[in-house]
Formats: sequence, C-alpha cells, structure tokens
Amino acid sequence: MEHITTLKMKLKPLGKGTLSGAQVFSWGPYMQGVLMRTIDSRYADELHGMSFNPYSQYCYLDEGGTIIWRISALTDQAADQIITPLQKLDSFEIHSAGVSVETDRVETESIRLKQLTDLITTDQGNKAFVQFVTPASFKCQGNYVNMPSVRLVLQNLLMHYSKTYEGRGEADQETLDFIVDHTLITSYNLRSHYVPHVAGAGRKIPSFMGKMTFGVYGPPTMSGLVRMLLRFGEFSGVGIKTAMGMGGMRCAFSDKPTRPVEGQVA
Amino acid sequence: MEHITTLKMKLKPLGKGTLSGAQVFSWGPYMQGVLMRTIDSRYADELHGMSFNPYSQYCYLDEGGTIIWRISALTDQAADQIITPLQKLDSFEIHSAGVSVETDRVETESIRLKQLTDLITTDQGNKAFVQFVTPASFKCQGNYVNMPSVRLVLQNLLMHYSKTYEGRGEADQETLDFIVDHTLITSYNLRSHYVPHVAGAGRKIPSFMGKMTFGVYGPPTMSGLVRMLLRFGEFSGVGIKTAMGMGGMRCAFSDKPTRPVEGQVA
Repeated sequence: MEHITTLKMKLKPLGKGTLSGAQVFSWGPYMQGVLMRTIDSRYADELHGMSFNPYSQYCYLDEGGTIIWRISALTDQAADQIITPLQKLDSFEIHSAGVSVETDRVETESIRLKQLTDLITTDQGNKAFVQFVTPASFKCQGNYVNMPSVRLVLQNLLMHYSKTYEGRGEADQETLDFIVDHTLITSYNLRSHYVPHVAGAGRKIPSFMGKMTFGVYGPPTMSGLVRMLLRFGEFSGVGIKTAMGMGGMRCAFSDKPTRPVEGQVA
Repeated sequence: MEHITTLKMKLKPLGKGTLSGAQVFSWGPYMQGVLMRTIDSRYADELHGMSFNPYSQYCYLDEGGTIIWRISALTDQAADQIITPLQKLDSFEIHSAGVSVETDRVETESIRLKQLTDLITTDQGNKAFVQFVTPASFKCQGNYVNMPSVRLVLQNLLMHYSKTYEGRGEADQETLDFIVDHTLITSYNLRSHYVPHVAGAGRKIPSFMGKMTFGVYGPPTMSGLVRMLLRFGEFSGVGIKTAMGMGGMRCAFSDKPTRPVEGQVA
C-alpha cells in the first residue's frame, strides 16, 4: 500500500523584513527550482517526462506569520526521491527572489493511502469547508478559468487521483456527473488573483483565492468519496501548476449534517 | 420615446441608532409594501398581473452612512404611477421592521431611453465594473444560483430589456451566445449571502454580493450592447426579486481599452 508523505519546513529568510502572504506564495516557481536542484537529476528528468505530478509544493504564511514550505509526495517513490533529500536541506538560495533561506524546523508526516480511502465509508457529515491557500486556476478547452465550480474542483481531483493510483488518465464521467448533481457550493468568499507567468514577458495567469463550502446531498458513500477527494487535494493541490506553488488547498468537514436551505445549482 | 426615471430618497429612521448595510437592504421586501400602499390600488393590481416588473427598488447605505431608498421606473407609465405618488411621501411606517421613517430629501432623475441605446455606438472601452449593491440571485431550471456568470447576468438583463421595451419574452439566444463567447470575468471579489424569504418559516434564498469586472473582447457594437445592458441593470436590477430589494447593481466603464492577459473562460 502506498503512503502520502508531507514535509513542512519552517523557513527563515536572512536579512529580509516582514514578507506578505502574496510575496511568500509567489516563491512557488522558485521553490520548484530549489526542489529540482536538491533531488537526484535522474529522477528530476523522470518527473519531467511524467504526464502528472506525484508531488505538490507551495509556500504560505501560517497564523503566527511564519513562512512554511509544504511539500507532499503522493507515492512512496516520490517520498524516497523528493522528501528524503529535502529533509537534509539546512539552507538554500532562492536566486530569482534574491533571498538566502535557512530551514528552522522540519516536520515530516506520513499517512497510508488506506487512511484516505477509509474516508469513503466514514460518516463525517455532508459539509466540506475548502480553503484555497495559494492562487488556484483551472484549464478548460485551452483557456484559464478563474472561478471554481463543483465540477472543476472535483473533476480535477478525481483525475489526479486516478492517474496517481489507478493508472487511468480519465475521470469516470458517470461518477462525476452524479457528484455534480448532488453537490452545491452553499457559501463562498472568493476573489480573483493574477499569478505572474514564470515564462515572464508580463503574462499573468488568471486565478483565485478564498474559501468555499460544499454541501453534499447524495448517498453516504458519495459524500464519502467527495471527502476523500478533497482530503487528497490537501496533498495533490487542485487545478494547474500544483508543482509550482499554485492550488494549495486545505479542507475540514463538519460532523453535524445539515440540510440545504433551498434547491440551488452550483 | 420612453424615459427611465429614478427616485432617490434619503431616509431618517426615527429613534433608531446606527444601522448596518445588511439591516438596511433587508428592508427591501417591506419597502415594496410601502410602495404598494402608496400607489393607486388599481395600478398595484395591474403590476401583480404583469409577467415582468417595470420598476425596481432597494435600500442601501451610501458612503456617508445615509440610508437611501432608490426606486427606478423603467417606463413613462411606471414613472407616472409609482414615482409621482412616492415623491409626495414625507414619512411612513415600516411595520414589519418596527420603524418610523421620515424622508429627508427627495431627488428625481430621468433619462430618455435613447440615452441608453446610444451607448451601443459610443466607444467607452471594453472594461465594465459591476458592483452588486444588494444581494443578487438567479433562478436556473427552478433552482437558485448564488454565483454569477457572464451568461446569467447578461441573459437576465437582455430578457428584462426585451420584455420591457420590445414586448418579447425571450432573449435572442444567438446574440447572447456571441456575447458570452467574447466576454470574460477578468476580476472579481464575491461572497455568498443568504436572504431571509419573505414567506418566512426560516427559508432563505442563496445569493451573493460583491464586485466583478467584465472584459468585453468582441466587435465595438457588441461591447456597446454589453455596456447598454449593464447600464440598464442599474435601473432594472439584476436577477430575481428586484422589486423586493434584491439585485441592486451599479456599473462603471473604463475609457481605456485594455487587452486580456491570457485567454480565459468566465
């Protein structure tokens, strides 16, 4: 059985004053560079050839104002190849941001994949709170989409999950349609955001940040599947460029089932 | 040629402390009651039989914290029947809110419908800023929708415009599809909101408030049509229950055309 391994590094930038959340999550693409320099170059090449990322990473400010770099490896191989070398990283340079960084504290946490799939059959209520911690964006028919929908979020997670653990590139459309028909965005507070494109030239990626609550009103195993996918999203990230600091998300579930106030299409 | 007439009343609630924006726009349904009591009862009956509202009204707090009641009549008949009697209203009771109100200042403004249609051929740039001043919501296949999209906003306005001035109940789908294909939500800051249902029993209507910017990237007359519809929305309101204080909106246009940063689906 596979494991999902998460590394949290507390970062101390040297000679820098207080940094804003926006400055910190804009480090995402540079941190991918740090990661690539740290891991074995053969594995780095292998990653480039993969059709999906078996890891995600992003930087954020925690509630106490500490800069955290969070890297998740979705498979045992990715944990060996990415997390293990990063654990030994005491200091590094973020060249493009002109910052020297010391790692203050390193925490590693691992869960068995089964702990995730067990969520399908564990009743934890039908409300899921999702927070988009770093800017998230989707691609749809070649275009960026800067507003989330039930379908966009859950299709992306279902596809990423299937690719990672089942070797299937496509999300099961019937399952997805059923989920979309029984899941509502009951409340939200979202704002758009533009992420500078790494390729530069002033191009920017339309994206969004904020909070969203899903109400899931299908059979228990369906709510369970939605919870499982959202929890998976904490490790995989959601949407595009999750290996470059985008799509960082966290979720929580309400243990008190609530009813929808009125029918509503998300 | 028809006129659109807007009445702005500065309200002074007697014996009440400072009121919040949310308290003030929750008066919407009660203000419809005040309006119905003030106008001729035969016209009130006529309004009930209409398939669309030739007026909209809502209460809001202006920047200085003054409570404003804003009523717009979309036709000359509605202006005669609704605005004229309301202009003479010096004080009234909002029974359900337990408030006595004095009107402090009354302003009436009128534009010719042609001033609106002239917007189609006036170049004012391709950026439109929309603010949802009171909670807005749409109905789609019988369900409430608490998140706006280009299609929902512009379809609603196009339909309301067609019903009011062209006697047609349906929005031209081809025009609408073309607009949707060439209009993006380039930025936004929106949050969900629940409006207590007048029918009571704890039912609430899922809705939203906030700001949104449209980028319109079609031919000049198409951007002109979008500007015309959005400006019309300042008078008609947008979405459901615009006669009961919901869907109050304001808009502004940028005179500097800007390009989209990258392709994006709204």
